[in-house]
Amino acid sequence: MNSEKIPDIIIGRLPIYLRALQRLADRGIHNTSSQELGEMIGISAAQIRKDISQFGEFGKQGTGYSIPFLIERLQGILKVDRVWDVIVVGMGDIGHAIAGYNGFVNRGFKVTMLFDNSPDKIGQKVNELEIYSMDSMVERVRQEKVKIAMLTVPASAAQEVANQLVKAGVKAILNYAPLHLSVPKDVRVQHIDPATHLQRMTYYL
Amino acid sequence: MNSEKIPDIIIGRLPIYLRALQRLADRGIHNTSSQELGEMIGISAAQIRKDISQFGEFGKQGTGYSIPFLIERLQGILKVDRVWDVIVVGMGDIGHAIAGYNGFVNRGFKVTMLFDNSPDKIGQKVNELEIYSMDSMVERVRQEKVKIAMLTVPASAAQEVANQLVKAGVKAILNYAPLHLSVPKDVRVQHIDPATHLQRMTYYL
Repeated sequence: MNSEKIPDIIIGRLPIYLRALQRLADRGIHNTSSQELGEMIGISAAQIRKDISQFGEFGKQGTGYSIPFLIERLQGILKVDRVWDVIVVGMGDIGHAIAGYNGFVNRGFKVTMLFDNSPDKIGQKVNELEIYSMDSMVERVRQEKVKIAMLTVPASAAQEVANQLVKAGVKAILNYAPLHLSVPKDVRVQHIDPATHLQRMTYYL
Repeated sequence: MNSEKIPDIIIGRLPIYLRALQRLADRGIHNTSSQELGEMIGISAAQIRKDISQFGEFGKQGTGYSIPFLIERLQGILKVDRVWDVIVVGMGDIGHAIAGYNGFVNRGFKVTMLFDNSPDKIGQKVNELEIYSMDSMVERVRQEKVKIAMLTVPASAAQEVANQLVKAGVKAILNYAPLHLSVPKDVRVQHIDPATHLQRMTYYL
């Protein structure tokens, strides 16, 4: 099928399914149902069945899903059946925390380069990775063909750094700076901004 | 109007509008249009007008929006026209980074208490806040009537700590642990999981 036709909202749920399935697998469980999965992640069983059926047949009626098989397929669809190099740009507190975060293991990502523009930080090591000067970023990213960056610079610098990342060939940016980034259409951006997430909840308090 | 009827997807966009308006205000700009706002945040002008009109009249046809007025109204709707106390539970690297994060200023939140269960960390200070023992969490949260928590404990502990937060009266949890939390219906959870965000983008690479 033409994968371009899968709505973005469904693609957005697949990592959630994959994460839950990997938790079940870690507990040594081999089979699950849309019902069980739905209860784990707060999504209806019908929705899960519908989403997953977009990608083919994943289990016989009544027998549920084979967890290893479904994990493998979802990893293939999301292209995390490989390990992507990811760079971190901006080595403040958040950048440090992400560079040392062990939650990427087995999820398809490895932090391979760190960048900052502060002379105090350049040359230092975090988790055995040296912090490089931002002046060398475009060249290094191009050379290593890195496609994914996590951006943890201050808001005032974020758009300019994003422009450089795009110039270097980066196609996916996880943006921790609290502003919207303007990028070309073939570049994806996801935003992590805790204040925005909190403001989504205060409405209901 | 009955605010309960506003779809969650619209509520989710309001913090994005508010953030962009505050950036314009910081630059000394007093008026904007749905067109300009839309270009800043990558949402269509028509969508913005439609979302904002749910809450009443915010500008005359052709004259655009008064930024200070729209900020005030959005802050009121999202209930961030006040400052909410927020606690951080789990003082690893991410917890430290969040406790020291200056991005909450003027957005309606203040980190007021920190918790961990490690004897090495309890009693230490981060940003002039003492790290308290998790044993005292339920009592302290109840006493201060805190409604919002950021959860940065390991995945293996997150559900148990979330249960305690709910018991203590917390109604909104920003969950940094890479798993779905099960909570009662009157408690809101937002998830920040960088690997999940990255996996949403690799599909398109």
